[in-house]
Amino acid sequence: MKNLFCFANNQIEPLEKAGVPLGDLMVQRGYGIFDFLRVQDNKPLFLQAHLDRFFNSAAIMRLNIKESREQVIELVNQLIQKNNIPSSGIRLLIGGGDAPDGYTITAPHLIIIQQPLTAPADYLADTGIHLVSYNYTRQLAEVKTIDYLMAIWLQPWMKSLGGDDILYHNEGIITECPRSNIFMVTADNVLVTPNTGMLKGITRNNILSIAAENDISFEERPIHLQEFASAKEAFITSSTKRMTLVRQVDAHVLATSNDSSLSHILFERLLKKERFFS
Amino acid sequence: MKNLFCFANNQIEPLEKAGVPLGDLMVQRGYGIFDFLRVQDNKPLFLQAHLDRFFNSAAIMRLNIKESREQVIELVNQLIQKNNIPSSGIRLLIGGGDAPDGYTITAPHLIIIQQPLTAPADYLADTGIHLVSYNYTRQLAEVKTIDYLMAIWLQPWMKSLGGDDILYHNEGIITECPRSNIFMVTADNVLVTPNTGMLKGITRNNILSIAAENDISFEERPIHLQEFASAKEAFITSSTKRMTLVRQVDAHVLATSNDSSLSHILFERLLKKERFFS
Repeated sequence: MKNLFCFANNQIEPLEKAGVPLGDLMVQRGYGIFDFLRVQDNKPLFLQAHLDRFFNSAAIMRLNIKESREQVIELVNQLIQKNNIPSSGIRLLIGGGDAPDGYTITAPHLIIIQQPLTAPADYLADTGIHLVSYNYTRQLAEVKTIDYLMAIWLQPWMKSLGGDDILYHNEGIITECPRSNIFMVTADNVLVTPNTGMLKGITRNNILSIAAENDISFEERPIHLQEFASAKEAFITSSTKRMTLVRQVDAHVLATSNDSSLSHILFERLLKKERFFS
Repeated sequence: MKNLFCFANNQIEPLEKAGVPLGDLMVQRGYGIFDFLRVQDNKPLFLQAHLDRFFNSAAIMRLNIKESREQVIELVNQLIQKNNIPSSGIRLLIGGGDAPDGYTITAPHLIIIQQPLTAPADYLADTGIHLVSYNYTRQLAEVKTIDYLMAIWLQPWMKSLGGDDILYHNEGIITECPRSNIFMVTADNVLVTPNTGMLKGITRNNILSIAAENDISFEERPIHLQEFASAKEAFITSSTKRMTLVRQVDAHVLATSNDSSLSHILFERLLKKERFFS
């Protein structure tokens, strides 16, 4: 693999030389946030929306990013030019900074990493995934923190049930998957997605915009796990994967999607939106 | 400050040169555990108990420490000799390892840091602290993970209420403070401490042993916040601070401790135990 450059320690430097100082609160206390966006044909996708969220996460977590938004954009563009990985992912990352007392937020250091990433397929695969539900709400769920403790810890359990991913719920009310949002199409063709207790993904927002722009009925509302029993379609969304169909949630097997389904229409519109914004 | 050595990247190296690789799951996903012990007169205190817990945390988190217990002890001793900081703290730290997919545990790297630490006073200060309660249970509470997201995030809120530390509870049943365990002495002189939902601290275990060895009545049981209204004494315990008296929990102001109190007796025995084990 060719040598990659990242931004760390206030400079653009080789990725293999960079590290997070051992005194940083990210290392000592797991206190950090990030954002992740896809680069397609050397262009960052929905960069403004990702920056909005990154700076918002930082503000909620009281992390003072010393770089301006314009400087972050400039650094992202420099890395894209220098690394030249047309299909890749960019991770913005910031922790609590070097804390002499190991506990108090100081001056956080921005880190930007770019790494190769296979672009998702340009069609919506009909083989859906199997979600297994777990009663858990992320801490500060509306913030994109680095806290994936439960998600990673639960992997063997999830696999033992034949699951492909986890669906978090709060006493039966679904919220999100560890790295994606969830949508359902009800028996009467309404697109629904949870309204609280989760991270509002950039792709989630794009899907909702597409629905609004195309007169597709949609609702953001509490959804009970039992509703999958009567759901026509379901899919999860993320910047990395765009959309992935869901074929099963726990014991509920959904109808197989077909090309005329709402999921496919939304997927085509999402592709168009990507092209428009890149 | 003199140059300190740590163990990182499989070698003893200068602390300021060491860092956690950007691809480690500790950085990318907050997936890591640690332990922290005090060094007094260049001797590690209760090292065996801390190693028991560290290896146990690692096992629960599926982190395979490639160093044997004997090798870890040898590394700790080498750092103590090389750094020569008679009063200090040693942090053992391990994350999920460098994950090409940013999600799957690989080969974790052990990190050992030694830093100066002012030894706690050899007497139990009568000025107790003020705890403010917060409804929250740590994820995988019995494991010493690096997850202090809520503790750090809550600091401004805690200070706005005049608090010195936070006391977590689960719907009124107290569990622990973010970095210490809690004990209470009831009106009828029984020493009580929570039995579930928290990390079992080394000092907590020492206090319970001391109670057992000295025929002091004690119980590990669920404790409701309201019990502080009638409590005679309360204190928190940690390896760093030994014991700290509590004078107030929310609106409940406790009676001032005096030298004949049970807390003082336990403190004197704890000092003896330290001397015996070092």
